[in-house]
Amino acid sequence: MSTNGTNAPEPNVPEVVIQRLPLYVRVLTQHSRRGVDVISSEQLGKLLQMTPAQIRKDLSYFGRFGRQGQGYQVADLEAQLREILGLDRSWNAAVVGMGRLGRAVVSYPGFEPEGFNIVAAFEADPELIGQTVSGLSVQAISDLPIAVQRQSIKIGIVAVPVDHAQHVIDLLVDAGIKSILNYAPLSPQTPDDVVVRGIDPVLSLQSMTYYID
Amino acid sequence: MSTNGTNAPEPNVPEVVIQRLPLYVRVLTQHSRRGVDVISSEQLGKLLQMTPAQIRKDLSYFGRFGRQGQGYQVADLEAQLREILGLDRSWNAAVVGMGRLGRAVVSYPGFEPEGFNIVAAFEADPELIGQTVSGLSVQAISDLPIAVQRQSIKIGIVAVPVDHAQHVIDLLVDAGIKSILNYAPLSPQTPDDVVVRGIDPVLSLQSMTYYID
Repeated sequence: MSTNGTNAPEPNVPEVVIQRLPLYVRVLTQHSRRGVDVISSEQLGKLLQMTPAQIRKDLSYFGRFGRQGQGYQVADLEAQLREILGLDRSWNAAVVGMGRLGRAVVSYPGFEPEGFNIVAAFEADPELIGQTVSGLSVQAISDLPIAVQRQSIKIGIVAVPVDHAQHVIDLLVDAGIKSILNYAPLSPQTPDDVVVRGIDPVLSLQSMTYYID
Repeated sequence: MSTNGTNAPEPNVPEVVIQRLPLYVRVLTQHSRRGVDVISSEQLGKLLQMTPAQIRKDLSYFGRFGRQGQGYQVADLEAQLREILGLDRSWNAAVVGMGRLGRAVVSYPGFEPEGFNIVAAFEADPELIGQTVSGLSVQAISDLPIAVQRQSIKIGIVAVPVDHAQHVIDLLVDAGIKSILNYAPLSPQTPDDVVVRGIDPVLSLQSMTYYID
């Protein structure tokens, strides 16, 4: 696990490190908005409940940020991490499944300010196709491949019942989607070049009860 | 990072391992329901997109399961992992925040079958207090400490706007809650003995765009 001394994507960065970087971005953004210029790995560690050494190690995968004993330039580190993560641009996403969950996802106000634009909504139920949800005309799933191409959709969000989730994920993968946010409670099978993140509150609860006395 | 040869909680298990155990439980449960008796680390690894070595290492923290070359007894491993995680009993939870998100959480049908019972709902808005949501009478936040004691509430679920989240988390911690599921987009400050899991789809999206070409 080497550092490469540049900000170019580093193929050997552990996935757990990549998953922490958005937390850094969030904290840095908050501080930069408050006019804070410099932050130490100790301060970052306290805010994120990590050790300063872990923070420095995570960042070292991407080259040199800040100097020993001087802390990090907040705005500069934020900008570089955003660039590394691809957050300096916007991304188009499609939601599959227009039941209660899918409707909540489409209308969630937190995506667009962060550059994630939900530009298409799909459903299998013929009664829902053609309806308008949060300004989007619900399309048949058979329209997915064309929409992915025409609208440069890079992210698929799966909000269908668990029994349909693997099939829908297969369709997304076939349509060329490599990034999937999965709300269905299953661990889907996907090719190695597809990244899936699950949103499952039950799994989160189940990994907390271990710690309860 | 030693193994201790028993199923007693092992204080040195990395948190990332604990977070994977519910995934194992989910896959094992599916297989046990289908009548599968034995599963290999290779099969588990394929289903969870991990290496067999990683699976064996994760499980080795908790003692010996299965024998070299013979695979794991599905029902037995499932039962032991459920016991390790504390999933062989039920847990009472309270939701704070009865806006759209909190109402969706309270009515989510996925918690109760897994042993998580939402037994209380709290809100700051006087207009919502006293209303009934999914069979629960919404209570004032000032009633939280008494409810936690009386109803043996061990888990707090935070569904309030981000500006109120740290305050609500402080109240939960003061009331004796050590496990918090946080839907607000912030990294809260909590004592070391409190476990917080965040549910934030934006963070998940932001850690996927790194991999998009």
